[in-house]
Amino acid sequence: MKLNINKYEIPKGFKALGFIGKIKRNKNDMALLYSETDTNAAAVFTKNLVKAACIKRNKELLANPDSINCVLINSGNANACTGKKGENDNKTLAEHTASLLGIKESRVLTASTGVIGVNLPLDNMLQALTNTAPILMSEQSDLKSAASAILTTDKIEKNCSVKININNSDVTISGIAKGSGMIHPNMATMLGFIMTDANISKTLLQTILDETVQDTFNMISVDGDTSTNDMVLLLANGRAGNPKISEQNNDYKKLKEAVFEVSKYLAKSIARDGEGASKLIEVEVNSSTGIKDSKKIAKSVISSSLVKTAIFGGDPNWGRIIAAMGYSGADFDPEKVSIYFQGAPGYVCVMEKGEPHHFDKITAAAILKEKNIYITITIDNGEYTARAWGCDLTYDYVKINADYHT
Amino acid sequence: MKLNINKYEIPKGFKALGFIGKIKRNKNDMALLYSETDTNAAAVFTKNLVKAACIKRNKELLANPDSINCVLINSGNANACTGKKGENDNKTLAEHTASLLGIKESRVLTASTGVIGVNLPLDNMLQALTNTAPILMSEQSDLKSAASAILTTDKIEKNCSVKININNSDVTISGIAKGSGMIHPNMATMLGFIMTDANISKTLLQTILDETVQDTFNMISVDGDTSTNDMVLLLANGRAGNPKISEQNNDYKKLKEAVFEVSKYLAKSIARDGEGASKLIEVEVNSSTGIKDSKKIAKSVISSSLVKTAIFGGDPNWGRIIAAMGYSGADFDPEKVSIYFQGAPGYVCVMEKGEPHHFDKITAAAILKEKNIYITITIDNGEYTARAWGCDLTYDYVKINADYHT
Repeated sequence: MKLNINKYEIPKGFKALGFIGKIKRNKNDMALLYSETDTNAAAVFTKNLVKAACIKRNKELLANPDSINCVLINSGNANACTGKKGENDNKTLAEHTASLLGIKESRVLTASTGVIGVNLPLDNMLQALTNTAPILMSEQSDLKSAASAILTTDKIEKNCSVKININNSDVTISGIAKGSGMIHPNMATMLGFIMTDANISKTLLQTILDETVQDTFNMISVDGDTSTNDMVLLLANGRAGNPKISEQNNDYKKLKEAVFEVSKYLAKSIARDGEGASKLIEVEVNSSTGIKDSKKIAKSVISSSLVKTAIFGGDPNWGRIIAAMGYSGADFDPEKVSIYFQGAPGYVCVMEKGEPHHFDKITAAAILKEKNIYITITIDNGEYTARAWGCDLTYDYVKINADYHT
Repeated sequence: MKLNINKYEIPKGFKALGFIGKIKRNKNDMALLYSETDTNAAAVFTKNLVKAACIKRNKELLANPDSINCVLINSGNANACTGKKGENDNKTLAEHTASLLGIKESRVLTASTGVIGVNLPLDNMLQALTNTAPILMSEQSDLKSAASAILTTDKIEKNCSVKININNSDVTISGIAKGSGMIHPNMATMLGFIMTDANISKTLLQTILDETVQDTFNMISVDGDTSTNDMVLLLANGRAGNPKISEQNNDYKKLKEAVFEVSKYLAKSIARDGEGASKLIEVEVNSSTGIKDSKKIAKSVISSSLVKTAIFGGDPNWGRIIAAMGYSGADFDPEKVSIYFQGAPGYVCVMEKGEPHHFDKITAAAILKEKNIYITITIDNGEYTARAWGCDLTYDYVKINADYHT
């Protein structure tokens, strides 16, 4: 499946626009995603007990079977821990957007990322919406400006799209995301918005998203801190015209695979662009006898500060890897474990069946110099494979997060 | 209760000596703790699934009701993931020690810390034991040399002792420990050895240790990585002559409190001396309605990379604290939470009942400049309080762990 990277293709019937809300400074910090026609929305939200106003409201809205038309996003302010006023501000923004677009308030979802505990500059944002909505309605669309507006200290915009054919209809799936890094680095909020013109029932759309997120967005880690504002939305407006997908048939599988590939690309982009990161790390745990244990192991290794600093230092430190596996909570036999480092320069086996394995240090050094580090862990003779993505822990991570002052 | 810090007092009947085992270089890297008479031993070991040879053997030995006489400790090499040879080496060291001291091999426990996956320099170590055992037996004892020998990259030795009176007998409790930091920083092994001349049953000794460790050593975090070699031993040889403690009476409570204070001091010393640390952070979670949730919250906050970098940067970033509370897995009502920073310069309330609270920035800045940072979190109207200790995340942590090469 061929992914189009940074082409900013948008599915039929969708529009997007980023604009200046004057939240923190004079840059794009608000974005609208809009579908002319009714759109099914599937969502996953942060599991953090402390939830931002936008998360609470979206959950309520999506609990009923209504369609939606619009997502309003802002960066620079998370509108979290802002009490009743924060909830009112969030609702006011949705109401204003709805009135400008001529839709019901309940058809506008919201998403925020940025500093916690500060009230939104509501007047600036309402004025910006008043100015921008007519531009969006007059056929203008610019997905790149939206992808840029949702970023905070991310260094790169994150977009990819894919086109598939379902039952003779061309279907487009396109996603944007933001990762860790903030103007005010209070919180590493992860946001993902995936749009498609596929025609699919709301229930199956949610199933696709739930299953996809488990293996993509939920398998990345930058610093182990889960935000109060995390959100991934999958929107489907049916404008591709394919026969409605209402069972888990081949059309469903095709769409799911495409959503998976878009999500995986965006998730890896977030890991690669983690705060201060210089390298993307991919950990593959294969041959395990259970998928849950494989996932626990992969996430534990990718999240270990000691593994992350070793990769930053260019060292194939397998002692830290086996230790992180050991405290992951997964059940496995250490004496069956083998560990490999791989990359363009070749591969080295550093641990074989639980014991140190002599390896070529020159090849290992060359592999560790690469920007993409692949760690492969073989557990046993099972059939399950899990992958997780993360980044190294660098001086810049400490700098970014220590230099900030509230 | 008055703790004596770095006085290196040793309970009656115990001896200790550090010596050069030539494991990594020409410094003290081996130590013997020895009791002339039979000693009850209580122990807690790492929960890491991957366990070093010493952990496996000690567990087997302590499963039977026998007493012990000796603990052999080495730094510079963890003897973990070294397969059958590692297990044989470990046993050979215990056998040689036993034969030199004229005791059964099963009466010698072992502990190791250092690089993973490298075989011990066995000949050097056996020779060092041969040289040292006669010195130890000829009445020489030097607890300071033992406290120094078990360190790796720790910057300071960790010892404290306390004297109590149980039923007209003077009882001494004295402990040494090592924290995170290694000559070869493959692993942050935590070791603690507490000796007492109190007379107490083995069962109750283990109960004291289990309960103490939950609130002291298990409530510290440097980098979230659990070692393959962690171990805390509590040894009691009964030489104080108090009537044997065989029920949970007042004598028991008195001894338990003393062991708790010694353990808490050692645990805090480890947190303060964490790799690259410039500050000790204490998080107190009070007024909660359940102790388990309080502990989860305290440990989550103390372990958050974002909280740790904020403290390093001198910023009272409560957004990161409430977020870390939220993903801790504890159940609480965010709208009842208040957060305070405290220190010699005074205190500031940064969040009150779930909302931002205006605070004096000058006082906050002064508090954050201190070496000891106290964060107090009020949850609700309950009666439970938990404390956890950690350290800030600094450039030096990254440097120490990235500069090392296997």
